[in-house]
Amino acid sequence: MIKSIAHIGIAVKNMDEAVRTYEALGFKLEKVESVPEQGVKTGFLPVGGSYVEFLEPLNAESGVAKFIEKRGEGIHHICFEVDNIEKEIKALAGKGVELIDKQPKKGVEGMVAFLHPRAAKGVLVELVEKK
Amino acid sequence: MIKSIAHIGIAVKNMDEAVRTYEALGFKLEKVESVPEQGVKTGFLPVGGSYVEFLEPLNAESGVAKFIEKRGEGIHHICFEVDNIEKEIKALAGKGVELIDKQPKKGVEGMVAFLHPRAAKGVLVELVEKK
Repeated sequence: MIKSIAHIGIAVKNMDEAVRTYEALGFKLEKVESVPEQGVKTGFLPVGGSYVEFLEPLNAESGVAKFIEKRGEGIHHICFEVDNIEKEIKALAGKGVELIDKQPKKGVEGMVAFLHPRAAKGVLVELVEKK
Repeated sequence: MIKSIAHIGIAVKNMDEAVRTYEALGFKLEKVESVPEQGVKTGFLPVGGSYVEFLEPLNAESGVAKFIEKRGEGIHHICFEVDNIEKEIKALAGKGVELIDKQPKKGVEGMVAFLHPRAAKGVLVELVEKK
């Protein structure tokens, strides 16, 4: 079951510049963590019980670099928190929901899986079971 | 001060179809409300203390219709809750943050104002003071 919004992922060209821009809106950077296997540096800015997550590409081949090239900086995905990601993925697959990840993989906040944007009206949805 | 994510606005072609698609993911429609002056029908689906908000255009001239024509269905904006929207807008304007609405206007959840996407790294940000 989807419990809450874990974070909103925003593709940015430059982490420091994005942090300064959002500081003007009242946000504060809490932590930065690189995920080399996904080709991104992530920055988390808390808001209520959720986060704004900046995604800066580590190289030109990263999916986030291609996203920015095609659509510019902006919202990349939404991540929803679930209790049990294995169970969730199985239930969704059983209903014919189109998944990118049929198996959970390691993310910054815990085990994650992405649904296909076709499964959510053009929205790239990530699910996370927090560690 | 920004307190929490009030909702994530998603532009959709057809409310009923979008609701069915998200029901498969575990969401439930709570209320539907039209905002003729903005040319949209809105649908709210609760998630944690926040909402997914569907935006279906009421006519071809609506901003949401043009968004869908240009970019397809998908995330249209994020709305953050603030305590005092008048004070917030003044403080942001004082810092040189680029606003679309210099005065709050009536929205579904309360008084709202939009910032320019240039003020938030390509993200259309709405602020709401809930009624």
